[in-house]
Amino acid sequence: MLTFYYAPGTCALATHLALEYAGTPYEAVRLNFKEQQQRSPEYLRINPKGRVPALVTPQGVLTETPALLQYIAQTQPEAKLAPLDDPFQLAKMNAFNSYLCSTVHVAHAHGARGYRWTDDPQAIESMKKKVPQTMADSFELIETQMFEGPWVLGERFSTSDLYLYTLTRWLQGDQVDVQRFPKVAEHLARMDAQPQVQKVLAAQRA
Amino acid sequence: MLTFYYAPGTCALATHLALEYAGTPYEAVRLNFKEQQQRSPEYLRINPKGRVPALVTPQGVLTETPALLQYIAQTQPEAKLAPLDDPFQLAKMNAFNSYLCSTVHVAHAHGARGYRWTDDPQAIESMKKKVPQTMADSFELIETQMFEGPWVLGERFSTSDLYLYTLTRWLQGDQVDVQRFPKVAEHLARMDAQPQVQKVLAAQRA
Ligand SMILES: N[C@@H](CCC(=O)N[C@@H](CS)C(=O)NCC(=O)O)C(=O)O
Ligand SMILES: N[C@@H](CCC(=O)N[C@@H](CS)C(=O)NCC(=O)O)C(=O)O
Repeated sequence: MLTFYYAPGTCALATHLALEYAGTPYEAVRLNFKEQQQRSPEYLRINPKGRVPALVTPQGVLTETPALLQYIAQTQPEAKLAPLDDPFQLAKMNAFNSYLCSTVHVAHAHGARGYRWTDDPQAIESMKKKVPQTMADSFELIETQMFEGPWVLGERFSTSDLYLYTLTRWLQGDQVDVQRFPKVAEHLARMDAQPQVQKVLAAQRA
Repeated sequence: MLTFYYAPGTCALATHLALEYAGTPYEAVRLNFKEQQQRSPEYLRINPKGRVPALVTPQGVLTETPALLQYIAQTQPEAKLAPLDDPFQLAKMNAFNSYLCSTVHVAHAHGARGYRWTDDPQAIESMKKKVPQTMADSFELIETQMFEGPWVLGERFSTSDLYLYTLTRWLQGDQVDVQRFPKVAEHLARMDAQPQVQKVLAAQRA
């Protein structure tokens, strides 16, 4: 049995969706970020980074969205969440996921978590101001260079679709109109309609 | 034949080392960052992100360090650069690599590339000031929580050792004394002595 730690509205949604699509049994544990539960001594024993997502497996704890996505795809191969039979296509998936993790997610984090990189309140304000631009630039690159269509990797659905969907949902709060990116906007609508997505979003709201 | 794009002193060293350890033929092409060659129209056709590393394979171009490291390990399995037979251990490797890519590399980048996240010159200065702290905090976590020893994953050497070595080399420039982290310091010395490392560093200097 897997135990999955998340908070609503975070990047952990991608892993939550992967677990649901994989059809494997898991228990989802919600952390309350307003109460800083991610920094409680109990949670730091599970994930010393004090972040979500974290997945407790029979072999130990795993963190980091790209690693979790491939792990779930590899351990539940019948769910076909990754091109496991083709190292090049798998690398394409991991490159896309790594870009989301190291560039797009990081751009977004400068909105609410600027204190990670500066102690100056004015600098934190100036970082917030640039988030709409950095997020729009990232999605421009995704729209024009990276998104194959109809899914991220082309005909094959993969974890990259779950992860892209998760970060696309942040655009509105970051004051970027998703309609500027027609392929991404259509992908968002298509993902919104999937029953697994509806189910996980309802569970996170419950 | 593989064509590999890099610039000296960058994160591309990890992928360069993986190619060398894999023993596969490759051509290494150096970009001159002082001349902004990473933003030239020719290079943007190869990697529209305008970054290194990039690897041109017979099937297409791949980017992103964590994706490249696993790709090289998977396509040259006899080099044993990753625990390919164990999805959990492979996820451990990818989680470590993802942490380096999305947190440690990003912390470092606030030193020289703060303009990515703000347009305010004073904010850029304030970000620079925090780099020694964020880098030290990251390496504290690596030293005390993530590094198994003698290699990152324990008894098995992996791409995580190449990637950790690459980022450990940045500590001095970021004004962090590696000797604060005894396991990482010993790892640095052991990696420095490896013939493949010597060979790649000499090629990058030549
Ligand atoms: N690189 C990690 C980043 C994880 C991360 O930053 N998670 C955020 C939520 S989106 C978090 O837990 N933040 C809590 C905090 O900073 O206190 C991943 O992709 O899994
Ligand atoms: N997430 C990417 C980051 C690549 C990256 O930022 N590379 C830097 C060198 S360490 C670069 O090419 N910078 C050039 C620039 O910003 O103009 C990876 O891990 O491969």
